[in-house]
Amino acid sequence: MTKRPTQEEVARIAGTSTAVVSYVLNNGPRSVSEDARRRVLAAIAKTGYRPNSAARALVSGRSTVIGLVVPDLANPFLAQLTQSLERELFGRGYSLLIGDSGDEPARAATVVETLLAQQVAGLVWYSVDLPPPLDVLGGSALPVVVVNDLAGSGVTEAAPAGRLISVDAEEYRGVRLATEHLLAHGRTRIAHLGGPQGRLNSAERSRGWADAVSAAGLSPTVRMNVPFTQEAGADAAGHLLESGCDAVVTANEMQATGLLRGLHRAGVRVPEDLSVVAYNGTPAAAFAIPSLTTVELQVSALAREIADALEPDSAVTGLTAASELVRRESCGCEVPAAEADA
Amino acid sequence: MTKRPTQEEVARIAGTSTAVVSYVLNNGPRSVSEDARRRVLAAIAKTGYRPNSAARALVSGRSTVIGLVVPDLANPFLAQLTQSLERELFGRGYSLLIGDSGDEPARAATVVETLLAQQVAGLVWYSVDLPPPLDVLGGSALPVVVVNDLAGSGVTEAAPAGRLISVDAEEYRGVRLATEHLLAHGRTRIAHLGGPQGRLNSAERSRGWADAVSAAGLSPTVRMNVPFTQEAGADAAGHLLESGCDAVVTANEMQATGLLRGLHRAGVRVPEDLSVVAYNGTPAAAFAIPSLTTVELQVSALAREIADALEPDSAVTGLTAASELVRRESCGCEVPAAEADA
Repeated sequence: MTKRPTQEEVARIAGTSTAVVSYVLNNGPRSVSEDARRRVLAAIAKTGYRPNSAARALVSGRSTVIGLVVPDLANPFLAQLTQSLERELFGRGYSLLIGDSGDEPARAATVVETLLAQQVAGLVWYSVDLPPPLDVLGGSALPVVVVNDLAGSGVTEAAPAGRLISVDAEEYRGVRLATEHLLAHGRTRIAHLGGPQGRLNSAERSRGWADAVSAAGLSPTVRMNVPFTQEAGADAAGHLLESGCDAVVTANEMQATGLLRGLHRAGVRVPEDLSVVAYNGTPAAAFAIPSLTTVELQVSALAREIADALEPDSAVTGLTAASELVRRESCGCEVPAAEADA
Repeated sequence: MTKRPTQEEVARIAGTSTAVVSYVLNNGPRSVSEDARRRVLAAIAKTGYRPNSAARALVSGRSTVIGLVVPDLANPFLAQLTQSLERELFGRGYSLLIGDSGDEPARAATVVETLLAQQVAGLVWYSVDLPPPLDVLGGSALPVVVVNDLAGSGVTEAAPAGRLISVDAEEYRGVRLATEHLLAHGRTRIAHLGGPQGRLNSAERSRGWADAVSAAGLSPTVRMNVPFTQEAGADAAGHLLESGCDAVVTANEMQATGLLRGLHRAGVRVPEDLSVVAYNGTPAAAFAIPSLTTVELQVSALAREIADALEPDSAVTGLTAASELVRRESCGCEVPAAEADA
């Protein structure tokens, strides 16, 4: 946070005009004598001056920074998405400026303000259920990627001035897939550990579970709405056991690993007594005890598609994020390790 | 990545000079007629122009962005540190630009180049064992926080032009603390699952284990050097069991949760047959099966101290990051849930 050397200082030390410094830095448009060139380079070395992409952004109207807003970086799924996006953008010459909105509207608006003030070239918005702050974005011509764009978020009705790229993560389909897999295992009393009540994506995920159960001629009765945390998952174990369910579909992986811990504490065997499948899994699910069957988003592919959509020459306005069922022990597909070796 | 509206366009539409636009935006230094003020504000609304902190940074020589380089954002410890730092800086009006170095020297250098080109106001560097690229930083007057600054990293010998803030995470002390705790539990054949061979912090952590074991009159013989991943931890289980050890100190939490999975698969009871303590734990360790005893860095406090040290008026050049032993089931301090309820 020290004052940085300026192009003026370089020019003063080199005994040239700032225009000459600029010609040296940009290799033109005018030619520079070899002597002046050497003096400019020596002055740059002496002052530690570096040509400034913020300055270039002002001149060219283009920046090489993409902003990303996430609700909780400590969530492994979001950490994985952030990493994939950072790597994908880095390979294309962009860097990623992240903001953690804590999923609070006021903070989210300030985060977006901050990113816009940094002249980001595009914005990627991920929220549990907040639409991007359109009042803040209103006049901006940025491309904005909304992951996950849910029906009712209001985004499509009041699109910002720039290109809106809506990512459909098919959450309904993903949770439905998880539920149908438990039905295929012969489970008939499938409970749902959902996200916080009143959140858009909680509702979407819950609907996937309810429709799958109903379509099988069963009754979707046991549903809990709790935060997307391990604590909440562990705490839910008691109530779920009392409900007499024989399987649980959770709305995210943190809830599921917390639930496995709660069930272990209660002496319940997974999957023998109760099977569990999590929506939105990560590779870490393979190391849960028992290993956790999940519906997993293809994060690397999504990151690539988002980066493609943010390129200036793209006209993409909609993406669909593919996800797939990853079968492991907790649903009953694989024999739990402890049993296999016993 | 569209061309952004400029101050010149605002001035043209408002029928004023750009100086008047600037006076309106900055509330001075000259006064503006109410009529001109209204026309400028209308033009700003129409074009979606926003005053630009990158431009302000150029004028004032100050930026409000801090750069952070980490080796692996998908590592929960680093995700937690990133989140804490982002929240701490956000509260002070700074935002965080992150780069994932993959712990590869060439990529790390490019990441730092990119951050410098974005005119960051300071840099936080975290690496498994790479020193910050001094050739890149050489001429820069930035404050640079090096977490964790290890003996032999070469940083202190060739400090950059700016203020260097060295964070001592006391890794030696932390792993020694973990090992001594297992000795206090009466374990006498304590193995070490270390990080990759040849890495500076692997060596530092291993030394903490070896010294604790030696000081107890025992022999530090069983040591493995593997990547900081769950896969590597799981794969190490077989070799560790063959060694006849009765306890394992791991160099990070991912190795430990992987090891718990590998031991579970082999039918080994933790902590009865083998106890486990992990260095560099996170809150997620409470949900492992069994819950994992760790030495945990005080991440929030560290984030606050780093942010303090980056403030322009700070003269801090060294920080010590406190860590503490968090006792749970895997060492034997708490009775494992399954046994307690059986």
